[in-house]
Amino acid sequence: MSWLDEALRDMTQRMDVAIRAALSPEPRAGELMRPERLLAAMQHGTLNGGKRLRPLLMSECAAAFGRADDGVLVAAAALECLHSYSLVHDDLPAMDDDDLRRGQPTVHKAFDEATAILAGDSLLTLAFDLIAEPSVHPDAAVRLRLSQDLARAAGVGGMAGGQMLDLQAEHRTLGEEEIRTLQAMKTGALLRYACEAGARLGNASPEDVARLRRYGEVIGLAFQLADDLLDLEATPEVMGKATGKDAEAGKATLVSLYGADRTRQILAGLVEEATTLVAGLGPAGERLAGIAAFVAFRSH
Amino acid sequence: MSWLDEALRDMTQRMDVAIRAALSPEPRAGELMRPERLLAAMQHGTLNGGKRLRPLLMSECAAAFGRADDGVLVAAAALECLHSYSLVHDDLPAMDDDDLRRGQPTVHKAFDEATAILAGDSLLTLAFDLIAEPSVHPDAAVRLRLSQDLARAAGVGGMAGGQMLDLQAEHRTLGEEEIRTLQAMKTGALLRYACEAGARLGNASPEDVARLRRYGEVIGLAFQLADDLLDLEATPEVMGKATGKDAEAGKATLVSLYGADRTRQILAGLVEEATTLVAGLGPAGERLAGIAAFVAFRSH
Repeated sequence: MSWLDEALRDMTQRMDVAIRAALSPEPRAGELMRPERLLAAMQHGTLNGGKRLRPLLMSECAAAFGRADDGVLVAAAALECLHSYSLVHDDLPAMDDDDLRRGQPTVHKAFDEATAILAGDSLLTLAFDLIAEPSVHPDAAVRLRLSQDLARAAGVGGMAGGQMLDLQAEHRTLGEEEIRTLQAMKTGALLRYACEAGARLGNASPEDVARLRRYGEVIGLAFQLADDLLDLEATPEVMGKATGKDAEAGKATLVSLYGADRTRQILAGLVEEATTLVAGLGPAGERLAGIAAFVAFRSH
Repeated sequence: MSWLDEALRDMTQRMDVAIRAALSPEPRAGELMRPERLLAAMQHGTLNGGKRLRPLLMSECAAAFGRADDGVLVAAAALECLHSYSLVHDDLPAMDDDDLRRGQPTVHKAFDEATAILAGDSLLTLAFDLIAEPSVHPDAAVRLRLSQDLARAAGVGGMAGGQMLDLQAEHRTLGEEEIRTLQAMKTGALLRYACEAGARLGNASPEDVARLRRYGEVIGLAFQLADDLLDLEATPEVMGKATGKDAEAGKATLVSLYGADRTRQILAGLVEEATTLVAGLGPAGERLAGIAAFVAFRSH
C-alpha cells in the first residue's frame, strides 16, 4: 500500500469522525431539534466511502505551512459536506438520474426525492455553519474569508454554475474554451478552493496563497483530463462503473479534441508545473507533488 | 394607504435593487462567469413580488438601534435570497408540487426542474456570499456571527428540518408540541433571525439582542396562527389562492386544536407581548409594534 493510499484511508477515517460529530442528533445553540430522518439522509450522502481527496488536499496545504491540528479537519469536513451536497443533488432524477453511487443506492433511492433535496440543502447549509467554528482559525476575519470564498467557489459563478453549463451542453457541442470554463467551474472551483483555503488555514503569505491557489487549478485540470481519459480507455471492470459514457452521449471532452497521446503529454506538463509550485514546502510539499502525479496518472 | 403598506412597498423596491445587483451577469472575484439561464431562474425566484416582510423586520430592528445605511439592505438581501431558495425548492414536484406562486409560474414551470434545483442551491449559496460583504458590518467577527446564525436558522435544525417534519406530518397527526416545534423551525427560525440579526447590525447590547430575538419568536408564532386562521376562515377570493387546504389535507394546526376564538385571544396576547418588547425603542420600536399587529390581524 502506497503512502498515498494510506493517507487517503486515514483521511477517510478522520472525515467520518468529523462529519459524524457535525451530524450528531444533539441540537446546537440556536436549534430546537434535528429530525432523525433528515440526519440519516445527510449521513447516507456523506459517509459513503468517498475518497476524500479534497480534505486531503486542504490538510496537506495547511501542513505545508506548519498547521496540523484538528481545526483543519473541521474546515475539511465543511468542504466535504459541500461536495457531498453537490453529489446528492446531481444524482436526482431531474439531473443525472443515478440510482447508484459507489455501489450503494443514491439518497433519493434509499429515502425519497423530497428527502434527498432537503438533505442536499442541509449539507450545503451545514458547510457554512462548520467553516465558522472557532477551531477552524483563531481570527474571525480569516474564517469569514474562508466562508465567502467557499460561497463563491460553490455558487452561480462556480460549481453550481458549472453544473448548469453541463446540463445545457447536452443540447449542443461545446468548443475548447467552453469546455475549459465548464470544467474549471464544475469540478475545478472546489479543488482550487481546497488548496487555497488550506494555505490560508496555515497563515501562508499572500504569495504562497496565490501559489497554492494555482496548484489547486492545476490539480483541477489534471483531475478532469485524467477522468476523461479513463472514460475513453478504461474497461468497466477496472472502473467499477460504466465507461465510454461521454462518447456515447456525444459529449465533447478535451480528450476527444486532443487525442490520448497529446492528453498524456499535457498531463505530464501539469504534474511538472504542480511539482514546481510546491517545491521548497518540505515533506508536505513532496506529498502534494505526489498527489498531483496520482491525480494525473491514476488507472482507476 | 397605511404607513406599513408604504414601508413594505418601499422595501420591495429596495430589495429589487439590491437583489438585481447581487444577480448581475458580471462575475465577482473568484468567479469565471455566471450562466445566463441560471441567473434568469434565480431572478425569477427572487424578484417575484414577495412582500419582503423579513427584510423590513431586519431593517426596522437595525433602525431601532440607530443603523439605517445601505449595508443593512445587503444583509436583508442575503436573508431574502435564502427565503426565496426555500420557496423555489418547496414548490418542486417532489415537494409541494406547485405550478403557481403569486400568480406566476413557479421556477420549475418557467424553466425546468433541474434548473430550479440549481437556482435554489445558488440562491442559498449566494446568501452566504452577501452576508460576508464588508458593507454589512465593519467588524468581520459580527459578519461571521451573522453568517453562522443564518446557517443554523436555515439548516437541519432550523428551516430545512422544519420542512422535513412537515413532509413527515402528511402521514400522521401531530400533537400540539410537535406542531409548535415544526412551525418554530419551518417559518419561525428565519423570522426570529431577521430580528436578532437586525439588532446585531445595529450593535445592540446582548440584552437588547435577546429582546429582539424574543420579539422575532413572537412574530413567528403570530404569523403562523394568523396564517392558519386565514386558511380556515377566509374565502379564496380574498386570499387569491385556495383556502381550507389544511382541513382538506387532514392536517392538524394549532387553530384546529384551539378554535378560532381562543386563537384570536392568543394573537392579542402575542401582539401585547411584542409591543412591550419593543417599547422604548423610539419610532422604529413603534413601527415594530405596528408590524406585530399587522402580522397577527391581517385579513389577507
